[in-house]
Amino acid sequence: MRHTSRDIRTANRYQVLRQAIADSPVSRPGLARETGLSLATVATLAGELVELGMLVEAGFEESGGGRPRGLLAVNPSGGALVGVDVAETYLHVEVFDLALRVLARGHETLGPADGAPERLAQRIAGAVLGAAGRAPGHRVLGVGVTMPGLVDREGGVSFAANWGWRGVPLRELLAERLPHPIYLDNPMRACVVAELWAGAARGREDALVINLGTGVGAGLAFGGRPHRGATNSAGEWGHTTLLPHGRPCRCGRRGCVEAYLGAPGIVHRLRRSGDGRPERGPAGEQAGAGGPGPEHPPPGGEEADRRHEGAGSAAGDGPQEDQTAAIGALARGCAAGEPTAREVVRETGELLGTALADLVTLLDPEVVVLTGWVARRLGTWLLPPARAALGRHALRRPGTGPELVLSPVRTNPVCLGAATFALEGALAAGGRKDA
Amino acid sequence: MRHTSRDIRTANRYQVLRQAIADSPVSRPGLARETGLSLATVATLAGELVELGMLVEAGFEESGGGRPRGLLAVNPSGGALVGVDVAETYLHVEVFDLALRVLARGHETLGPADGAPERLAQRIAGAVLGAAGRAPGHRVLGVGVTMPGLVDREGGVSFAANWGWRGVPLRELLAERLPHPIYLDNPMRACVVAELWAGAARGREDALVINLGTGVGAGLAFGGRPHRGATNSAGEWGHTTLLPHGRPCRCGRRGCVEAYLGAPGIVHRLRRSGDGRPERGPAGEQAGAGGPGPEHPPPGGEEADRRHEGAGSAAGDGPQEDQTAAIGALARGCAAGEPTAREVVRETGELLGTALADLVTLLDPEVVVLTGWVARRLGTWLLPPARAALGRHALRRPGTGPELVLSPVRTNPVCLGAATFALEGALAAGGRKDA
Ligand SMILES: [Zn+2]
Ligand SMILES: [Zn+2]
Repeated sequence: MRHTSRDIRTANRYQVLRQAIADSPVSRPGLARETGLSLATVATLAGELVELGMLVEAGFEESGGGRPRGLLAVNPSGGALVGVDVAETYLHVEVFDLALRVLARGHETLGPADGAPERLAQRIAGAVLGAAGRAPGHRVLGVGVTMPGLVDREGGVSFAANWGWRGVPLRELLAERLPHPIYLDNPMRACVVAELWAGAARGREDALVINLGTGVGAGLAFGGRPHRGATNSAGEWGHTTLLPHGRPCRCGRRGCVEAYLGAPGIVHRLRRSGDGRPERGPAGEQAGAGGPGPEHPPPGGEEADRRHEGAGSAAGDGPQEDQTAAIGALARGCAAGEPTAREVVRETGELLGTALADLVTLLDPEVVVLTGWVARRLGTWLLPPARAALGRHALRRPGTGPELVLSPVRTNPVCLGAATFALEGALAAGGRKDA
Repeated sequence: MRHTSRDIRTANRYQVLRQAIADSPVSRPGLARETGLSLATVATLAGELVELGMLVEAGFEESGGGRPRGLLAVNPSGGALVGVDVAETYLHVEVFDLALRVLARGHETLGPADGAPERLAQRIAGAVLGAAGRAPGHRVLGVGVTMPGLVDREGGVSFAANWGWRGVPLRELLAERLPHPIYLDNPMRACVVAELWAGAARGREDALVINLGTGVGAGLAFGGRPHRGATNSAGEWGHTTLLPHGRPCRCGRRGCVEAYLGAPGIVHRLRRSGDGRPERGPAGEQAGAGGPGPEHPPPGGEEADRRHEGAGSAAGDGPQEDQTAAIGALARGCAAGEPTAREVVRETGELLGTALADLVTLLDPEVVVLTGWVARRLGTWLLPPARAALGRHALRRPGTGPELVLSPVRTNPVCLGAATFALEGALAAGGRKDA
């Protein structure tokens, strides 16, 4: 609750740089107009960002007969930001420049032995140094790392149910191996900051970022900042109930959101459909006892309790190659107008809209953004039925509901978000020129 | 998203005054310790509050051999704040001093004819002037008014489904009749600020305030401020689904949270119980088709669509005297150890905990506060089963869940919250000495 003028200054720096990333090159009056800050404030903040090497002067624009206005652009060689998405079975690294364009990538698979904390820190550090080496000429300003599970940002302590971690000082382990500032958080939070910095939540106060991947999560932004909650575990949504008495879920309960909207759940619906045993649509499933008989447990049901997985992993999900392939095939089927594919995705979209309705009613966001690899593949066909169901179910006056859109982020949103944690850290610290 | 140093200054003024209200009389170092602000900042802000007449010097305390420290107290005659809780069938007014103690009250019933905007404004203004007249010697700093429905704070336009209002400029209508600054909002938001200023959310960042009355609502606070959402209608929770295929709800759907946790729903459970047809507990009800046969619609089911009622009304609920009486009788039964009463409230508490679990999982608050007249009457017996169910259902590591507590607010929380809107307005404006 402590509010300091330093917090404000940092928040305003975020805004100016964010807008410059969106509009580069841009004049100071243009930045002032878009951010709502005064021209004097923008001039001061822009001066600081130039001094930090993050912005550079970039020529002039005519201004209707007056003196030409100086333009600012993001400094492409002002530094690099590294984002690491660590999942149970892989780690994915991306190196970004200050305009949040990808400079280099790395992908490695992880085996069970990599779950030992020292070993994992070693793997992460190696991947970061390797990827950074492929982006020469860019000083690394910071490294953001996301981990599934409960991540305590302050202490850098992490909890990951799948590896049995409790209170592992991962940040310390990484700091021993990397010379850069380290920022730890969870993947869902990363998806939210990715949308705030470079996606559909830019300039918005209250946004809901729905990650559709193998797992399902709901990232929240309020007042233009990610909502973390008391233990940095807000956004657990995949294992809240969508249809009681519904399908068994890998968490041991029934009818969870994830059992229908996670990739295995969608694949499950497709297979039943292909078996000539089409699963009923949302209305049929809600009929409960009158439903389609005992259901097979969804693929992945045998996995250990991963309740605390958080966002799951937003992209890749390496080992579940069959899922990735099946979702890809479904997308191709939809594109080709194949009726079964279209119907499966329509039903899924309807369930998505129904599931979102309660969230929207409760939180009243300006925008709901769909992200994650499943949303990227199926989004075009998920959106219309989801919008329709959301409109029917949310308790809103007509015309007052939020926009429901696909994320415009074209790279791994978790890596992008992790990298923006590092960018925010650098802005808060004043650039860390000495790093 | 605009962040200004003025916002910060206002937020810090809130904090210092809030702490002074809690601890009065208190030293400046005491305020600094409790708020986390620097002593210099506290000294500046306290000086401003003294100048505004909100704080006064109040003697000295010994400080372990050093120079005695000056103490500050809230100025009891520094001004009055009026809070008005407008519901469909009544309006309730309370006048508070700056320590948020009640100076005067007023209660009036409203009939259908009072739903005409001009007429309602007249009734409100009359009640405010009447109550303020019963607190002589206190200059009124502002008037906060809550209305069920969608309240647009900026334009002062209000929407109340029960009266068929659309875009009524209520603030303007009130400003023509009252010489004080007017603050409009909805009752759920008022319950949240009441807890932030003078209740169980004081000093907390993230809190959930659950209003249990005739209606049910969930007020949200993030970052120590109420969460409003894009259209100031966040917190609609009563008509989200607790048990699909469950009881019919007055909104036309089935199994809504309010159908079980609103006063009519609790009374319904009690009556079935008294009929020798005890309704099954949560487990039985979740069995859906195997449930206890067709249910009677709950009392109040005949009411028009009041989906947008928001928090409902937190206290009083005038006309539904039978509800009030029945809940009162239930409370006395619980106090006397009467098994049926205890069982009805235990089942209700269990449903409450189950309903809260998804909210807690999603939002990760520090504290959940139960407020409203039903909570005040039944809270003692609702809490233990609610805590147990919340612990079982929320996806949390043991020991990391939020506290679940009863509101310590002893007066009408909606009026108190409405009055604190006026207090916040006065602090933001610098005191409005000229009002
Ligand atoms: Zn589950
Ligand atoms: Zn309802």
